[in-house]
Order: sequence, then C-alpha cells, then structure tokens
Amino acid sequence: MDFNLSATYTDLYQLTMAQAYFDDELQNKPVIFDYFFRKNPFNGGYVIFAGLATVLENLQKLHFTEEDLEFLSTNGFHQKFINYLRDFRFKGKIYSVREGEVVFPTAPILRVEGNAIEAQLVETFILNFLNYQSLIATKASRIRWVAEEGILSEFGLRRAQSLGGILAARAAIIGGFDSTSNVYAAEKYNIPVEGTMAHSFIQLYGDELTAFRKYAQAHPKKTTLLVDTYDTLKSGIPNAIQVAGEMRKRGEQLRAIRLDSGDLAYLSIKAREKLDEAGFPEVKIAASNQLNEYVIRSLKEQGAKIDIYGVGTDLVVGKPNAALDGVYKLAMADGKPRIKVSENIQKVTLPGKKNLKRLYNPDGTFYGMDGIVLDEEKDFDVLTHPFEMHKSKSTKGIQAKSMLHLVMENGEAVNLVSDLKEIKRFSQRRLALLPQEYKRFENPHVYKVGISEGLKTLRNSLKKEYKVK
Amino acid sequence: MDFNLSATYTDLYQLTMAQAYFDDELQNKPVIFDYFFRKNPFNGGYVIFAGLATVLENLQKLHFTEEDLEFLSTNGFHQKFINYLRDFRFKGKIYSVREGEVVFPTAPILRVEGNAIEAQLVETFILNFLNYQSLIATKASRIRWVAEEGILSEFGLRRAQSLGGILAARAAIIGGFDSTSNVYAAEKYNIPVEGTMAHSFIQLYGDELTAFRKYAQAHPKKTTLLVDTYDTLKSGIPNAIQVAGEMRKRGEQLRAIRLDSGDLAYLSIKAREKLDEAGFPEVKIAASNQLNEYVIRSLKEQGAKIDIYGVGTDLVVGKPNAALDGVYKLAMADGKPRIKVSENIQKVTLPGKKNLKRLYNPDGTFYGMDGIVLDEEKDFDVLTHPFEMHKSKSTKGIQAKSMLHLVMENGEAVNLVSDLKEIKRFSQRRLALLPQEYKRFENPHVYKVGISEGLKTLRNSLKKEYKVK
Repeated sequence: MDFNLSATYTDLYQLTMAQAYFDDELQNKPVIFDYFFRKNPFNGGYVIFAGLATVLENLQKLHFTEEDLEFLSTNGFHQKFINYLRDFRFKGKIYSVREGEVVFPTAPILRVEGNAIEAQLVETFILNFLNYQSLIATKASRIRWVAEEGILSEFGLRRAQSLGGILAARAAIIGGFDSTSNVYAAEKYNIPVEGTMAHSFIQLYGDELTAFRKYAQAHPKKTTLLVDTYDTLKSGIPNAIQVAGEMRKRGEQLRAIRLDSGDLAYLSIKAREKLDEAGFPEVKIAASNQLNEYVIRSLKEQGAKIDIYGVGTDLVVGKPNAALDGVYKLAMADGKPRIKVSENIQKVTLPGKKNLKRLYNPDGTFYGMDGIVLDEEKDFDVLTHPFEMHKSKSTKGIQAKSMLHLVMENGEAVNLVSDLKEIKRFSQRRLALLPQEYKRFENPHVYKVGISEGLKTLRNSLKKEYKVK
Repeated sequence: MDFNLSATYTDLYQLTMAQAYFDDELQNKPVIFDYFFRKNPFNGGYVIFAGLATVLENLQKLHFTEEDLEFLSTNGFHQKFINYLRDFRFKGKIYSVREGEVVFPTAPILRVEGNAIEAQLVETFILNFLNYQSLIATKASRIRWVAEEGILSEFGLRRAQSLGGILAARAAIIGGFDSTSNVYAAEKYNIPVEGTMAHSFIQLYGDELTAFRKYAQAHPKKTTLLVDTYDTLKSGIPNAIQVAGEMRKRGEQLRAIRLDSGDLAYLSIKAREKLDEAGFPEVKIAASNQLNEYVIRSLKEQGAKIDIYGVGTDLVVGKPNAALDGVYKLAMADGKPRIKVSENIQKVTLPGKKNLKRLYNPDGTFYGMDGIVLDEEKDFDVLTHPFEMHKSKSTKGIQAKSMLHLVMENGEAVNLVSDLKEIKRFSQRRLALLPQEYKRFENPHVYKVGISEGLKTLRNSLKKEYKVK
C-alpha cells in the first residue's frame, strides 16, 4: 500500500544537483548507486533487511504535484527544469536482496540503475524507508530470539517517532512479532491487531470488579484484564479470577490478564499460581512496561510465567541506536566505475557494478562470509577483507549464490513480495541458517564480508588515479 | 496542514474500551485527561513543548473511513458501535500551554475534556504527535544554545525514523533551527529550505573543478561547494577558491564551502585562513558529519571557524533518548476526581480538574517553581513537592500566571497559532526567561513543580479511599 508521498520527500540538494545535471544535458547519463550500511546496530552481529516492498510500491507512484512545482519555482528552480519534473517518474531498474534477508555491513544490499537525475532524486526516500525498517526488524528479531515461543505484540505507537510508528508495526512483524496494537498499520498492512485495556477504563468505573465485568461483556471472545490499577495481588488477580469464573459459567473464556508495573517476574509467578489454583490454567499472562530483549531475557532467567509480551518504546524507536547508518553511494557513471576516496579506508567506496554472493556450508547454513564481486566476474577463488587487505581467504569449492535479484524494471516492481507473513517466514528461515555465534548479544562473532580479486584491483587502480599529491 | 490521518491511528484498546463504554451507555459521560511527562530528556533541565498545532489541525478532521469501519467490523466490533463510529468526530475541549513553551516534568501541559469515548480514542494520536515533536524541539534548543549565532540547518531525513522526519523538520524550527533540507516538510510547513551538494555530484564528473563549475553555473545565487571528496586542503579548497574567483568575475558570489569529514576544527580553521588569504572573507564555512550539541560545543572550544551547521541523525532521532515519556491520564470522570494508585508514589496520578501556574521573579524571569493547582482554587500560598511531601515552600507575594489556555472547543481549534516563525519566536522569548542554571548540560538545576494544598488534600483522600487492605 502506498503513502501517496510526493517526490519532494527528499533533500533539497538532490534537486539542486538534478537541475545542474539537467542544465548540463546529463539527464540521460546512466548511473549506478549502491545501498549499504557500515555498522550493525545494537552491538549485534547482523541486520534484517526490511522496507523493500514499501520502497517499490511508493517509488512506482512517486511524482511532483502542481503545488510542489509551484513551491520549487519560488525556491530557485527554473521553468525548463520544472517542466521536466512535471513528467518525472522513476523509470530505473533496481536489484535487491530479498526483504527479510539477513545482511551484514559493507555488502551492497540494493543497487539502483537509472539516469543521473532519477537515481539521485530517490536517494533520500530510499534511505529513509530502508534504514528505519531494517533497524526495527533487527530489533524485533532479537526480541523474538529471547522470547522463544512467547507471543509478541508491538505496543509502541504512543512513543513512536510520530508517523514512523506506522512502519514500525510493519517492520516488527518482519522481525518476528505476531501482532500490533496499531489499528492503522494493521489495516494498511494486514497485521493481526491486539488490544487489552488501559488503567483509565478501571479508573472510570472506580470499582475494579465492575470494570472487569463490563469489559468482559463487551469483548467475551478477546478479554484481557489489566490487574495492576490498585493492587495486583490483593485486588487485580482475585477480581480477574472472579470474572473468569463468571465467564466460564456463560460458556466463555477469559483470555489473559496483563501486568503493567512492579516486579514482573515475581508477580507473574504469583499470578500463575493463583490462576492455576483457582482452576484457570488456560488463562494466559501478558506483561508490558519498558520491555526489551534484555529485560525479557532476565525475566526468562528468573522463571517468570509470561505468555504474551507487549513491547513498546524500545522496539519502535530502536533503542539505543535509534538509526541505522545506511548510505547510498555512486558506483558507476556513464559506464565507468566511480570512487569516493577518503583518508579513512573504511569510507572509500567500492566502485563498479557489483553483485553480492552468499557462501554456504554443505549443510545449507551460512558459511560465515559473503563476497562482494564485480557483476561480470562469474567465479571467484579468493576473498579479501575490504579494509584490512592483508587478510584474505580461499573460497575454492565453497558453494556461493547470488543475492541481488531484479525487483524493479522501467519503474515497475517485478516479483513483488508484499505479504508480510511471507516476508516474515522467509526471514525466519534465513535467520535459522545463521549460526548461533553471530546472534548472541555479547561480542557476537563478526560475519566476514570480502571483496573479490577483480573488485580489489579496480578499487586500487581508481584510488591511485584520484590520489591527490 | 493536516495529514488526512484516519481515526484508526490509535491503539486497538482505545476502541475496545470505547465499545464497552458504548454498550454500557456511557458515551456521554464527561471525562478529563491530562497530558504530562515524567522525566526531562537528554539529562537536561527542561522540555520545549511542541506539536500542538499539528494535533489541533489533525484532530479537527479525524474520522473513520468506510474501509476503516469494514476493517473494524471484521475485528470484533459490532454493527451498532460501527454505526456510532461512522459519525464520530472529536467534539471536546482542549486547554493547553502554548506551543513552544518551556515545560517541566509532572506538570499538566494539556487537558482534554470530552465524553468518555472521544477522549479515550484520541489518546494515542495526541501522545504520538506531542511526545516526538517535544523531544526534537528540546534537542534543537540545546543545539541552538551552543551554536549561539551560528546558522542551523536540519539535514536528517535520510536517517529519520521514516515518516517521522516530516515532523522532525517542523520541531527543529520550533527549537531554534533556521532551515531544513527536507523539501516536503519545507513546503508543508513553510520552512526555509537549504541544500548543498553531495559527493556523488563530484564523483559523477570525476573532475572536482569541473563539478564545482557546473554547480555554480546552475545555482549562482546559492552555491555551496562540498570540498572533501578527494582531499580537502590540497584539492577541495583550492578548487573552491578558483570557482569563487570565476564567480566574482561574473558578478556572483560563492556562498559557502562544506566540510563533511575529517577534523572539522582543524580543517575549518585552515579553510578560513585560505579563503581569507585568497580574498574571500565573505565565503561561509558549513560543516556536517554526526554533529550534536556536544560536538558543536567542542568545535567552538577549539576555535573552529564554522558559520553553518548541518545537523542530521542525532537531532532527528533525539539521541540518546529517542522518546519522550509523555503520558495521558484520567483525572476526572462524571464530575468526580479519579486516581491511579501505585506502590511507586511517582506513578500515583494527580486527580481532579487542574491548572498549571508559572511563578515569576519581579524582573519577569521564571521563579524556579511551577504550581499545579485545582482549577477552582483561585489562590495558593504554599506549594508542596508532589512526591516528597515533607518539602513545601511558601509562595506568598510571588506573581503567578495561568498556563493552560483554551485551544479547542466543540472540536474546533480556537486561537490557533500554526505559523512556525511565530511559535519559534515565542519559544525563544520564553527560554530567555529561564535562568542559565536550568539550561546547562551537566547536572542542571531541577526546576521545581509543586502541588497546591487543595490538590494535596484531594489526592490524600482518594489514595485512602482506594487503598486495598
């Protein structure tokens, strides 16, 4: 589903550069840009790539409105260029790894091929959609990992970075969540939607038992009762058990209780005991209140009896990083490879039209090294560390598969996968192939990404060419 | 300007509770909710309240579409309630402090009065818009403080939490920024828009001098040249000086050069020297690359010669907090004050219909203490710490002014201030009245917020009433 975003959803300099290209009659010059990131977030060992379908769906429709053109004409752009923008549509080609894929720093994840103007104009939009959703899908996958079979619901809209919350719900599902509380996102992206009740509901009735009864009557098939408004153990849980009994007499079933404060480990164990003693082992226990992967891991270690986790702020803002450092760099122009040099070798870009290869162990798990190769290189026998050039490794006999697939041609999405369940399933299948040592939170193993001999040679020759002496 | 957001931009539980109220015929029960936050972000001493006009503009139009109603009918809501939602419009009253105001933890900043359903349904939307924009305006104000008279431009869209970037640009202006690179936001909110050039522009031409010339020809009135693509001192600055000279011969003027990597302090000092020596003291120096209030302070301390700061990621994601903990709590229902008790005194809510008073020194600066009072209390002589009740202070003879003003009535905005320049000017005037010790970054003085005798008595009596023994 698209946001009807305008093509002005970009940085001004994309447009000022575009006008300069236009004036210089370079609007048909072919270019290639790569999207990649430099550092895994959360001190983790991987990223879940997310946002692709939203990029493609919106890119297909991206255009300037008459109001946009009017605005630009009063902000330094001339009429000939404005006329060009009136008919602007992205007509380029995009190759990408699949949405939900497990990816690593430095590796080109998405490659845009188009003319100099279109490829430049869409940079900001692509970065804005991919960086955030990949950050959140990655965070969600970490929470999924520690929660094991627990039910995970995204509850973060109120603390989200405003409209970002819509895409947080989507990305959380890709990373392994089961549902969202965000009705707008649920409708837009066909996500299961979940809700419980707020303290205000109980406060409004004043009497907790009355409030529970009223809620159960209104939602007999999906009742979760919030038990911590006054006193969890002395009031909330006894009242919930009372209502669970009344529901059972009506042939209904209380789904869950929710804990939202206090010692969640202790309270959940006590709640489980009381519910079981009262004959309600089927009533689930939900917990919320500043949860994240570390808190959930700690709750698990303490033997907490929690079936459903409602995760909000830390998930939807991607704490503590809050941003993925993805960039979009020129690799080719006019058929010639291009480079950006820097005193910092890590900031020297990888030139040329490239592909990404994943290496596999004989059992199908990831080998521990991806290869960045020139698109024309059919085979590669050795991969070299992209920045520490004395480190290289033979890859003879190791199975390798191409990761970049055509996803857009002439500005139209091809082979579009937008069904979130399918993307989520794919992501979980792929993450299962990543060995455990790359998933742990503390000092995860570094997944290697190497460059081919062809790419190494090309970069060296361009570096020499641009060296300023 | 509104986002045409649907009323489904909320948490599901707001709707499940609303249906329960509807079934219980409580849809006309009057309620009052307060918006407040508990902790200043960034270890700072204050928050700049932002987002109000966007809340009011969107709230006026908030409604359910037929597609929304269809979605809800397949998600557990019954037809009678769906019919009620079809005609739903927020028709309540809102009192608020002015947008751009300096505010402090615990104090009610915004008060919503409406019926039980409308006031509950808009909670998530209000929190989502106010929390984020207040966070970013506060961050921006800190950056403005250290940048002093420097020009500040928001450059963060590519790293923003997706669509949140639109409102980041707005909030940054309120906090004291001068412009944005975000064309969409600039058009929507009438913000000055700024752009320079990217490395890709220079890479595309290959030759830096040619790229500079082409750009200067395309944008003679607003040329900023990026000088770090190959070598800042040996190539970028000499080439920029060459082009500045060529522009001068044509009667034009190079506006600025931009540094985007390396040691910004050292390079800016060297760049200033070289530009001055070459006879271009009017050419400004812009800097970017992971700037925030601490980096800018450090650059200043080192004597960096930077005129324009482009600030991206850390500003637009509000690092390191990334979220403001604002909440929305029931204070009255059916004419009676309501409370949420908790073992944690800080989480016990303040009941009743309340106003916020700001105390002033004789010279017009802020006194260092705000008062939360019951709306019916016309005078107050003493304020007590809201959680540490042994601390109280006489306020006799101190000037106090009400902070909450009517901003919405019958669902229509009144006295709406949506002009960003006006909001920014107001914010800067108010911040100037806040003594320096509350603004410093390290261990700022704590601005006191006290409760009146009437409010203290009311809370005590309700706490007793709800105590579970």
